[in-house]
Amino acid sequence: MAKIIKNGTIVTAADHYKADLLINDGIIQAIGMNLQAEAAEVIDAEGCFVFPGGVDPHTHLDMPFGGTITADDYETGTIAAAFGGTTTVIDFCLTNKGLPLCSSIQTWHAKAQGKAVIDYSFHLMIGEVNNAVLTELPQIIAEEGITSLKVFMAYKNVLQADDGTLYRTLLMAKEQGALVMVHAENGDVIDYLIAQALAEGNTDPIFHARTRPSVLEGEATGRAAKLSALADSQLYVVHVTCAEAVQQIADSRNQGHEIWGETCPQYLLLDETYLQRPDFEGAKYVWSPPLREAWHQEVLWNALKNGQLQTVGSDQCSFNFKGQKELGRGDFSKIPNGGPIIEDRFSLIYSEGVTKGRLSLNQFVDVIATRAAKLFGLFPQKGTIAVGSDADLVIFDPAAERVISAATHHMNVDYNPFEGMRVTGEPVSVLSRGEFVIRDKQFVGSAGSGRYLKRKKYKSDL
Amino acid sequence: MAKIIKNGTIVTAADHYKADLLINDGIIQAIGMNLQAEAAEVIDAEGCFVFPGGVDPHTHLDMPFGGTITADDYETGTIAAAFGGTTTVIDFCLTNKGLPLCSSIQTWHAKAQGKAVIDYSFHLMIGEVNNAVLTELPQIIAEEGITSLKVFMAYKNVLQADDGTLYRTLLMAKEQGALVMVHAENGDVIDYLIAQALAEGNTDPIFHARTRPSVLEGEATGRAAKLSALADSQLYVVHVTCAEAVQQIADSRNQGHEIWGETCPQYLLLDETYLQRPDFEGAKYVWSPPLREAWHQEVLWNALKNGQLQTVGSDQCSFNFKGQKELGRGDFSKIPNGGPIIEDRFSLIYSEGVTKGRLSLNQFVDVIATRAAKLFGLFPQKGTIAVGSDADLVIFDPAAERVISAATHHMNVDYNPFEGMRVTGEPVSVLSRGEFVIRDKQFVGSAGSGRYLKRKKYKSDL
Amino acid sequence: MAKIIKNGTIVTAADHYKADLLINDGIIQAIGMNLQAEAAEVIDAEGCFVFPGGVDPHTHLDMPFGGTITADDYETGTIAAAFGGTTTVIDFCLTNKGLPLCSSIQTWHAKAQGKAVIDYSFHLMIGEVNNAVLTELPQIIAEEGITSLKVFMAYKNVLQADDGTLYRTLLMAKEQGALVMVHAENGDVIDYLIAQALAEGNTDPIFHARTRPSVLEGEATGRAAKLSALADSQLYVVHVTCAEAVQQIADSRNQGHEIWGETCPQYLLLDETYLQRPDFEGAKYVWSPPLREAWHQEVLWNALKNGQLQTVGSDQCSFNFKGQKELGRGDFSKIPNGGPIIEDRFSLIYSEGVTKGRLSLNQFVDVIATRAAKLFGLFPQKGTIAVGSDADLVIFDPAAERVISAATHHMNVDYNPFEGMRVTGEPVSVLSRGEFVIRDKQFVGSAGSGRYLKRKKYKSDL
Amino acid sequence: MAKIIKNGTIVTAADHYKADLLINDGIIQAIGMNLQAEAAEVIDAEGCFVFPGGVDPHTHLDMPFGGTITADDYETGTIAAAFGGTTTVIDFCLTNKGLPLCSSIQTWHAKAQGKAVIDYSFHLMIGEVNNAVLTELPQIIAEEGITSLKVFMAYKNVLQADDGTLYRTLLMAKEQGALVMVHAENGDVIDYLIAQALAEGNTDPIFHARTRPSVLEGEATGRAAKLSALADSQLYVVHVTCAEAVQQIADSRNQGHEIWGETCPQYLLLDETYLQRPDFEGAKYVWSPPLREAWHQEVLWNALKNGQLQTVGSDQCSFNFKGQKELGRGDFSKIPNGGPIIEDRFSLIYSEGVTKGRLSLNQFVDVIATRAAKLFGLFPQKGTIAVGSDADLVIFDPAAERVISAATHHMNVDYNPFEGMRVTGEPVSVLSRGEFVIRDKQFVGSAGSGRYLKRKKYKSDL
Repeated sequence: MAKIIKNGTIVTAADHYKADLLINDGIIQAIGMNLQAEAAEVIDAEGCFVFPGGVDPHTHLDMPFGGTITADDYETGTIAAAFGGTTTVIDFCLTNKGLPLCSSIQTWHAKAQGKAVIDYSFHLMIGEVNNAVLTELPQIIAEEGITSLKVFMAYKNVLQADDGTLYRTLLMAKEQGALVMVHAENGDVIDYLIAQALAEGNTDPIFHARTRPSVLEGEATGRAAKLSALADSQLYVVHVTCAEAVQQIADSRNQGHEIWGETCPQYLLLDETYLQRPDFEGAKYVWSPPLREAWHQEVLWNALKNGQLQTVGSDQCSFNFKGQKELGRGDFSKIPNGGPIIEDRFSLIYSEGVTKGRLSLNQFVDVIATRAAKLFGLFPQKGTIAVGSDADLVIFDPAAERVISAATHHMNVDYNPFEGMRVTGEPVSVLSRGEFVIRDKQFVGSAGSGRYLKRKKYKSDL
Repeated sequence: MAKIIKNGTIVTAADHYKADLLINDGIIQAIGMNLQAEAAEVIDAEGCFVFPGGVDPHTHLDMPFGGTITADDYETGTIAAAFGGTTTVIDFCLTNKGLPLCSSIQTWHAKAQGKAVIDYSFHLMIGEVNNAVLTELPQIIAEEGITSLKVFMAYKNVLQADDGTLYRTLLMAKEQGALVMVHAENGDVIDYLIAQALAEGNTDPIFHARTRPSVLEGEATGRAAKLSALADSQLYVVHVTCAEAVQQIADSRNQGHEIWGETCPQYLLLDETYLQRPDFEGAKYVWSPPLREAWHQEVLWNALKNGQLQTVGSDQCSFNFKGQKELGRGDFSKIPNGGPIIEDRFSLIYSEGVTKGRLSLNQFVDVIATRAAKLFGLFPQKGTIAVGSDADLVIFDPAAERVISAATHHMNVDYNPFEGMRVTGEPVSVLSRGEFVIRDKQFVGSAGSGRYLKRKKYKSDL
Repeated sequence: MAKIIKNGTIVTAADHYKADLLINDGIIQAIGMNLQAEAAEVIDAEGCFVFPGGVDPHTHLDMPFGGTITADDYETGTIAAAFGGTTTVIDFCLTNKGLPLCSSIQTWHAKAQGKAVIDYSFHLMIGEVNNAVLTELPQIIAEEGITSLKVFMAYKNVLQADDGTLYRTLLMAKEQGALVMVHAENGDVIDYLIAQALAEGNTDPIFHARTRPSVLEGEATGRAAKLSALADSQLYVVHVTCAEAVQQIADSRNQGHEIWGETCPQYLLLDETYLQRPDFEGAKYVWSPPLREAWHQEVLWNALKNGQLQTVGSDQCSFNFKGQKELGRGDFSKIPNGGPIIEDRFSLIYSEGVTKGRLSLNQFVDVIATRAAKLFGLFPQKGTIAVGSDADLVIFDPAAERVISAATHHMNVDYNPFEGMRVTGEPVSVLSRGEFVIRDKQFVGSAGSGRYLKRKKYKSDL
Repeated sequence: MAKIIKNGTIVTAADHYKADLLINDGIIQAIGMNLQAEAAEVIDAEGCFVFPGGVDPHTHLDMPFGGTITADDYETGTIAAAFGGTTTVIDFCLTNKGLPLCSSIQTWHAKAQGKAVIDYSFHLMIGEVNNAVLTELPQIIAEEGITSLKVFMAYKNVLQADDGTLYRTLLMAKEQGALVMVHAENGDVIDYLIAQALAEGNTDPIFHARTRPSVLEGEATGRAAKLSALADSQLYVVHVTCAEAVQQIADSRNQGHEIWGETCPQYLLLDETYLQRPDFEGAKYVWSPPLREAWHQEVLWNALKNGQLQTVGSDQCSFNFKGQKELGRGDFSKIPNGGPIIEDRFSLIYSEGVTKGRLSLNQFVDVIATRAAKLFGLFPQKGTIAVGSDADLVIFDPAAERVISAATHHMNVDYNPFEGMRVTGEPVSVLSRGEFVIRDKQFVGSAGSGRYLKRKKYKSDL
């Protein structure tokens, strides 16, 4: 049955205006004044914004890490995402050296199967480049529609690739129409700093931050940017946390290179003092790269506003404090890295960005949905409100206030890093391809209704 | 009567998609698939883009300069603009020290009266700041809706204001919600360089460029940026031509200041060698700032792509070669500055920007229409295609090819600086508030149908 | 009679080593081990450094300012200089628009006549460039040996020159072999800020700093650097106080331009909080440019160490607190600018620079003596310890400690801005052309023994 | 017997003046006018400069490389150095992973034993850091006086160390008072580029340059600088060739870090077009990093002048064209890297630097001798002309002209990369510790007379 969303204020990356929306067959059919349609269900959005559903380009669901596994899988993770206003996630498919890439992809498909309540896609990790990879990759890009490749410059002896591998991946990506994503930290030096800290008995969570100083993120970001420039390829730097990295990205862009940067709510809003919370609570705030000194936050906000950074991902990677984060008691290097952000990403950026005047409404939509859809080959199917696009929509009450809490959130994890924070604005209802997943703040979707998204090749003229 | 534009591809600063457009009462009523309306005229846009009408933030129509007056007035100028796809111009109202600002504004209203075929507005030049100005200005902003103020850092003893005046204008603008625009060149040094060149017998047009070196534009741009930062105000740098100026703007933006930059087609596409054309033809290419060495062009294109510059104005200021440009034979300093660009701005940027892969379609719309509308308080009435916006539209055939020539252009001037250049893409029909001004490449509008636009105050959250 | 200084450690801008020095006829005759000479007076410098006498490139002695006159004239000023280890001063000869330059120079000669106890020279202020100046200047450079020209970018309506004048002075200097010196602050904006502060009742000394923000020094420094680069001339920026200005100088040098920077002890060691001292004591700390936030100090020290700044001048310009500084009670803009530094410059930089590891011994000699002598055409007569050079020497006890105080200083002024500061290292004896001026910390010179120094033209290969 | 060098113009890093020099016991005893001494040999240096003997901080004598060995050993190499005006060399002692450092040092001592005609010292390569190295190194620094450690960031699988090793070496150096030297190129990416070039049949010498682009030197230089800053250590970048690397060094210095840069005559004077010389002659110009586009040369000269780079080494590493360079016919990667520069370094920098106005005489002495002596713990014994210093002297005729040629040079190698180049200025006589090694352009020294120099620890206050 058709639906008409009436009286809302529609917001895209360029526009905002009051109009009605007509949806049919999962697609936006029309936008106009006083739209009518026979037999259509009418939803009143008076006083609300109607946003495109959020696109989260950075999640880790059902992922093994350091001997444990993330607390959220595709079911709990995507339900939480939907509650928060996100209707598409792109998850990282990890690979193993020596194994065919396709086997890892099959593993990831299996994780999502029958669980996802919103649409999803995969990025593919590249750990090495050899003949097997060179042979297999074009097929995967073509058949699986996986057009983004992740390279780690950190996690020595685990995920880290060397610079030759990064460079070859950039060349492949350019040739095949994919976008290379890097985790940019100098893993070699960090590896030594961690060993040294532990040898000196410095085992508390704060040493996670102290052994990953921002200069090492800036260094690796600059290195990746230069290799990408040399390859004349395209590069996307995930989870940028600091002024040093922003500077490297800005410099490279100013020289005309195609480089993009993502940051995350945690880096925009939290700082390294959280790692010093007593009773091992600091472990809740262990991300890599780590939280930084507070002054970096303004640099990141300004970079989003000015277009030096373009997206906000969640880097969702949740572990329970009890039993999981606690693995690192007495050894910060054993604390599973990551946290639960998938649900609050959208609201946090709205509340802290738009209502505090750091971002315009249009910029908010761009960083939370549109740009990621464009960069990762999902646009205009996802990421906007336009005739012909999927009806992935968020009806958002800008006047609502709520307090973030693990007691009320929908992620399958026993804490929330933003516990107690008051945010302004809240999704009321969320639609995926025209169907309600969240209606009046209640989950009404069904596990498995989310579809896998094959993505288009990377295009430079975004 | 309502109109429906069918089958076109609608392009905004964020989106592009195929849909129909319903127009009534001069307003966009709906955008959708297979729109129907009783008694509506149907226009087929199959194979065409439907763009928002161009917004040209920088024109000089019917303007006196150096003892002569521009060749185009509000009638010929706006007709040419419409042919080119531009439906809004913001013209510069010059003022005179000692006279009330309102008298100059009345003069400008009189120039436009009964002539303009598209909508128009005025920027206001500020030459001095004194009690009279301080008293008069708030009224003008409120009643005339003039929310942008122009300060000249060049043209010593004529238009040039000193740094104290610039600074005070920035303070006023911040307080009153206006945007300060600067012509950024160091007029004091240029004044000496011109005198010196003439004293040495260097009278040819090329000396116009040699006496206005790019370092002096970079210097003045940086100076204005720093004064604006000190005032915590907002600044718009008109007609940026060179790498030095782009760098200053980028640096200031990176520090979090609110500064915007405009460039023009001539700086993106022509270079200073044109000034050396024989038979005094170089005079046709005399703009201030002057054309630069060719390598600056790539810097400007990249700055537009990366968002360091945000708009493309025409700086329309046409003088006939015969009888006007010729005033400078034997003394380059007497060549009237400026050229006819209002008509070709839109097509040149499309052809050289979009078809050559330097800008995406969305970026094209942003720089040619949307951003200027936002910066100058006309959005969303102008500058986009959205429900509720004025139906200022361009039906654009991207496959059309034409050769620019004074023989066929519609500006009232005897040469075209892009004479002989082949461009791809051409406006077929142009509507202003829902009425055709250009239909199938013929002018069908009427003098005086253009309306004066009172503009909103400047807002920082664009 | 010949003199032999035995057992000291001789320090130059490149070397330090233990050796004896033989002096005759005011000249250094030999440096060696165990030097002997018949009938020579032997001075034991065991445990002491033997430094070249300091060259202070920036003094204002017997200078009228704002209706009063500096407290120190050529007698008291040069005696104090000698006590402090300085044996050459280059003073600023102010000029008046419309008067021949030579008349001002005669005035300055008269001030020094019969008073100076050490050698001295003059810089010449250029307030305008016209035919008279163009005619007169080459003669002055040739006959008076005045090879440095000062231009003020601040003090609107008093000393300030416009950019055209600065540019023409740079051209003259290049042609004539002179070095242009600028006071770099944006006088136009400062003029408004002062008027505004006073209009708002902000009359305390701290508003002297608040109306001269560092961004306006950075701006003017960059402007001067760019004009000098355009003129392909040479530039010396006096009294650099802040990071913004250092950055501009460094950028220009990195681009290959010939630009030099001077700072002063007050900017290296004091900060703007001094201006807030109670009972109008802040007035003692009024310099232009003003003292800055403390963090700038480390930038300045690093710039000296790295060679971005090259000299330390005193900007000696003393006014009594009683009766002179007090002229500004109730109106900070009437506080005479400047302070008494000529005596302590040498010791302060040794104590805070060398003993705290910020500068090497060689760098200390370079910034306090050698570089100024080279830049201003006095080398190797002055500024070093080398065979054939003037025997201007400081026997310096690095172990001595003293406390700076107006009660013990030799300047003719009733306060010392470093009152109570403990410094390590002190001149024991000071010789000018082989004759003691200070011996065992007692003045033994005579008024009028100092000679006027005609200087050589500026050479770029320093 | 004592010697007196009369009538020369003595030049140091700070001074130049006419004086006599008295030498006894290998030491400079006195500098003065008309020096006399009983029984002293008098050498007339009228019309000549007397320079301190050159200190070459970068040589590879008798070094194995790629299956061959350098053409010059300690005898031919140091004789050639002496002819050219160099009296001290610091050679690189290569080490092997797994072997004690001391065994490599013994090997190097054996190479020099009985052969060197001038004084010499060793830098020590660090390929890995483990407990053995950590234990052995302090001893070596103390006993062998080896206070500089070399780390290679290139030559993958051969000499290259990873970033962890570099970082640990920086920490060791800081603790032990040593200076870390890096060869800064990204070896991982170069390794791939070489393999790829060869796979594509690109085997000519020019591909040596094309597979080592300047961006990879800039990248590695920046990386090393950032790791050194993080370690709060000191860093010396050898053979800087390009603008990108200079920029990184300048940025780090501006931030207050202790980083130094060396360039070489080949990078200042030759460019990559030499690699395209026919008949495989390009192989003569194969250095790593490679020669660059010509425009980099001016950047390097300016960096020397401004103090962003501080020294000029030769990177002497000679291979005959016949039989050695020829190993790379058909595979550029097999061309032994390096060339014969030890002899002409001094003259080339004088001729191209001083006579062409790029460096002052003092700067010449600084970059060719003094600064290296200071940085590497040899000052003031070496690197200057001062009382008490070793009498390592060059009597240099600035008017002499000669043409560089393999036919006349003294290096044991069959070509000279500067063949046919005319230079102005030539060493006439050269003394090492007061004894002639070269007299009137003839070799008069003896193999084995050169002594090993134990060096002092690194001090930051140079």
